[in-house]
Amino acid sequence: MKLYTNRFAPSPRRVRMYAAEKGLALELVEVDIAAGETRTAAYLAVNALAEVPTLELDDGTRLTESLAICRWLEELHPEPDLFGRQPRERAAINSWIDRLMFRLYLPTTQVFRNTHAFWATRLKQVPEWGGLQRQAVEAEYDALDAAFADGEYLARGSFSMADIVAFTAVEFGKPSGIRVGDSRPALRRWYEAVGARPSARA
Amino acid sequence: MKLYTNRFAPSPRRVRMYAAEKGLALELVEVDIAAGETRTAAYLAVNALAEVPTLELDDGTRLTESLAICRWLEELHPEPDLFGRQPRERAAINSWIDRLMFRLYLPTTQVFRNTHAFWATRLKQVPEWGGLQRQAVEAEYDALDAAFADGEYLARGSFSMADIVAFTAVEFGKPSGIRVGDSRPALRRWYEAVGARPSARA
Repeated sequence: MKLYTNRFAPSPRRVRMYAAEKGLALELVEVDIAAGETRTAAYLAVNALAEVPTLELDDGTRLTESLAICRWLEELHPEPDLFGRQPRERAAINSWIDRLMFRLYLPTTQVFRNTHAFWATRLKQVPEWGGLQRQAVEAEYDALDAAFADGEYLARGSFSMADIVAFTAVEFGKPSGIRVGDSRPALRRWYEAVGARPSARA
Repeated sequence: MKLYTNRFAPSPRRVRMYAAEKGLALELVEVDIAAGETRTAAYLAVNALAEVPTLELDDGTRLTESLAICRWLEELHPEPDLFGRQPRERAAINSWIDRLMFRLYLPTTQVFRNTHAFWATRLKQVPEWGGLQRQAVEAEYDALDAAFADGEYLARGSFSMADIVAFTAVEFGKPSGIRVGDSRPALRRWYEAVGARPSARA
């Protein structure tokens, strides 16, 4: 299987980290977003939305959207499970994933889009919105720090896809200067523990 | 099962429409967002994020996030399926759901949040961002109109959760004055067909 990816983008990193945790080998094809490679005719034929990641199967079928890709891989390779074994456990993990995508990942990307120099010449930025979204990210960091009072990982007693979604989102705060910092000890402990996993370098 | 819901909000409507398609009876508890009822101590004890929907099971367990709720209900009540029967079909539906949540639902909510009078006195609006998000919604409507050239429904030959996600998002464009209009015949045909289903009134 081939994964069209980009080394700086958070969504393909989600898939790479997932695959590393599962021990799945993916042939990586680097797509240079900064050089406009997602918008070439060749890549638009791969992914009409001009986005990474795209997973290409050996039969040529393509699948887009990072979470859909991971859910599909989970069906084909259920062990070790990262989406939960029982319906109730899967529900808890799915609930965390949705929450994290909308309350953590999304505002983090909007800070980057609206305040980072990378986009300044590429699209219309609205720094005021970026500032509000930065506040939303900081508030979610505080909420997560409180949530960890109950456990070592986010959605259950062991590592899951929810931790991958959260970790890759927090990592993507770095280029915008958003940091876990020292004032959130439980979040920081989790962040360092997840960052020490080999999959964090995938 | 009890569903904390709000008649105007798109996320609980997603769950109500899903449950109606499945023939599942939910006891509805209306939470008046405009009157501040999501932020009362009583409701924060139900959902600490001050959001609807929340599903409450008969044993008192609670589950938040509309898609996680629907995925969980799908495990308990697999027929008629709305998330796909085979891994490849489920992957296609999941890919559409993710795309629609981020490229259709999300910008639609941000138009509402940043330009509608409802929020003007409740939070800091950034109309310029709302305007850009309105353009993003219109562009996605155009893309969906083109996508329908291939079929009657979004993700497969029959109705699925992807159609529910899209329909409830399009419906939520109305208060912001976003319309399918007459220039997108395929999208309009789909919109009217889905709107004629009994579940559209749930």
